[in-house]
Amino acid sequence: MFKQNYSSSLLEEAVDQFSSLPGIGRKTALRLALHLLKQPKENVERFSRSFTNLKNEVKFCPVCNMIADGGLCPICNDRTRDHSLVCVVESLRDVLSIENTGQYRGLYHILGGIISPMDGVGPSDLHIRELIERIKSEGVKEVLLALNTGMEGETTSFYIYKQISSYPIDITTIARGVGFGDDLEYTDELTLGRSIQNRQIFKP
Amino acid sequence: MFKQNYSSSLLEEAVDQFSSLPGIGRKTALRLALHLLKQPKENVERFSRSFTNLKNEVKFCPVCNMIADGGLCPICNDRTRDHSLVCVVESLRDVLSIENTGQYRGLYHILGGIISPMDGVGPSDLHIRELIERIKSEGVKEVLLALNTGMEGETTSFYIYKQISSYPIDITTIARGVGFGDDLEYTDELTLGRSIQNRQIFKP
Repeated sequence: MFKQNYSSSLLEEAVDQFSSLPGIGRKTALRLALHLLKQPKENVERFSRSFTNLKNEVKFCPVCNMIADGGLCPICNDRTRDHSLVCVVESLRDVLSIENTGQYRGLYHILGGIISPMDGVGPSDLHIRELIERIKSEGVKEVLLALNTGMEGETTSFYIYKQISSYPIDITTIARGVGFGDDLEYTDELTLGRSIQNRQIFKP
Repeated sequence: MFKQNYSSSLLEEAVDQFSSLPGIGRKTALRLALHLLKQPKENVERFSRSFTNLKNEVKFCPVCNMIADGGLCPICNDRTRDHSLVCVVESLRDVLSIENTGQYRGLYHILGGIISPMDGVGPSDLHIRELIERIKSEGVKEVLLALNTGMEGETTSFYIYKQISSYPIDITTIARGVGFGDDLEYTDELTLGRSIQNRQIFKP
């Protein structure tokens, strides 16, 4: 009995809420709740307010669907970037990963998910129609598909390909192969096989 | 530039707040913030409210300092428990660990920390005076010191021992030794040495 209710319903509710987050178990949730309890009242209020503010006031870039403070996002607004190249990704997290490489100077298009019949996500739940509108109206010359591999990602890439292949644009995808620092011994067969098929001229 | 501000100051604030928690880095914080953003508005409000409610309305048991909803905590209030035995622990988390064993039927006394000159925590910051009051007035026959080992825990145990050793009570500490399932080979020398010194009659 006591094991479950932590001696206080307020504490239990806070633990319940933390453990509703992905990857946070009840032991960690308790540690986080007790940590918050030790902070000054203003800090706890600021902590809580940041999430309701985010939820209530969040806006999305009308072009690429990136989370933004209003109007165009900083990337779509950047005139120095290549506006003829659009990289299609699942989520903002993928944008951040690609931005961190410093190798990409085009724009993005965030789908907001991938096609997943198991989770009830169909093509109409994603921002695919908006992608087609961009291709029609904005001088897009290349669409780079950068979805994660796996059945759902491949399905989504194929679906998008079918939808946009009739337009006069290049449709590309990111290179697959053995990662830098990876051992051949521990690379899966599909990746290693693909990296041999797509071998490139050695330039030392 | 973009890498830091996540394209939205609201999102950045939410990520900052999550990553202020112990053990949560900025990548995890972003994942949690984006997860919250996908939840219904009511859920996010309930999430946020749980922490301000906890902070603003939390109460502590006047006897053992356990978090409680008001008045005595469920343990101090339990007449079937042994009120002559008091186990001294650092925090509520230790209480939960001990309760989970099902082997303890006494009461607790939560210090609220351990003596740590590095962190500026001295004896007067802990609930040691209240422990002495309990010993004086409440028919305590045994105090079981169950603080974590390490210099700070040992210092705290020794300090408490000096403070209470003049009272007519037993002062005990939890047994140290090789844990069930631990290999002797990987047990540290101090623990293994102590477990040999304190060897017990074999009862198969």
